[in-house]
Amino acid sequence: MELLKKKIEQEGIVLSNTVLKVDSFLNHQIDPELMLEIGKEFSQRFANKGITKILTIESSGIAPAVMTGLQLNVPVIFARKRKSMTLINDLLTSTVRSFTKNETNEISVSQKYITENDQVLIIDDFLANGQAAIGLIDIVQQAKATIAGIGIVIEKAFQEGGQHLRDKGFHVESLARIASLEEGKVLFVSEKTSEVMK
Amino acid sequence: MELLKKKIEQEGIVLSNTVLKVDSFLNHQIDPELMLEIGKEFSQRFANKGITKILTIESSGIAPAVMTGLQLNVPVIFARKRKSMTLINDLLTSTVRSFTKNETNEISVSQKYITENDQVLIIDDFLANGQAAIGLIDIVQQAKATIAGIGIVIEKAFQEGGQHLRDKGFHVESLARIASLEEGKVLFVSEKTSEVMK
Repeated sequence: MELLKKKIEQEGIVLSNTVLKVDSFLNHQIDPELMLEIGKEFSQRFANKGITKILTIESSGIAPAVMTGLQLNVPVIFARKRKSMTLINDLLTSTVRSFTKNETNEISVSQKYITENDQVLIIDDFLANGQAAIGLIDIVQQAKATIAGIGIVIEKAFQEGGQHLRDKGFHVESLARIASLEEGKVLFVSEKTSEVMK
Repeated sequence: MELLKKKIEQEGIVLSNTVLKVDSFLNHQIDPELMLEIGKEFSQRFANKGITKILTIESSGIAPAVMTGLQLNVPVIFARKRKSMTLINDLLTSTVRSFTKNETNEISVSQKYITENDQVLIIDDFLANGQAAIGLIDIVQQAKATIAGIGIVIEKAFQEGGQHLRDKGFHVESLARIASLEEGKVLFVSEKTSEVMK
């Protein structure tokens, strides 16, 4: 998605060989117009998939997921990160390890919002090791629903998450795929298929 | 806002005299079309205020805030809730006490996203005791920016937060004002002014 790549080039800050900061339009400050365009792009890439629900994870996944939900005219659910959930019974839960933050979160979704007839599109802001996506997949599978696809705003293609998910047969669409962050520069994966699609 | 009140009547679950659960369209599952309408309503109520930024707090404030930002064509910033922020220096921080969850969170906003020339619209999903709003106000004031208004999706008008903020001179607009949750029923404040505005 050229608009997104341009935004990353203009405003992304490379903090290290593995960390890209996009706080100015995605993770802290949000550009609503860009989110709308991202929603349109995801809705095109997953058109005709019969999607009935979008599942994301708080907090940075919410804006792109809601704009995609608006385009596809389906509800959006955000999984909550919580340490303990002793008071609530009807939850689907999984565990997500964050390597960047060096912490493990239990994530949860109320089971009444995903049922076995749902075709679920998983949306998230970043894909690196794939831990968040795997946690969300686990929850969808616990609900016996179908995973219609996985939409990622920015994929760190130099980490293994994306390949791992594609190897498992999931339909993964990433709007910007980063090949490398070395020497402080953002290098995108050159994607012929993606260019032809435009 | 009649559409919102109808949704609350249809789907809201009164858990106690003080707790209303709106997990099916606002706090866990999100109705994107309703969020768009909420964004339009806020943008009308705060038109001609010269708003340059919207500030909200993760996670449930993000969807209504982003839709409002889309209508007003301004960036949205969400304050993060964090226990410690030892690694980062350029943050505006405040403290928010949640009576419902019985916990205190430090909230933070990067100081580069709010500057003294900004006219900030604060958006949040709920207003009860007003603690979250007060924390966000504190952050805007630390940045020496102007608070152009406070937009609330659901105000528990039987708690003191809204009155407290209005007494301080803030322009507060709540799209649904709840007078009471007693006997398991949602009773709205009857608002002649609001009806005339429609």
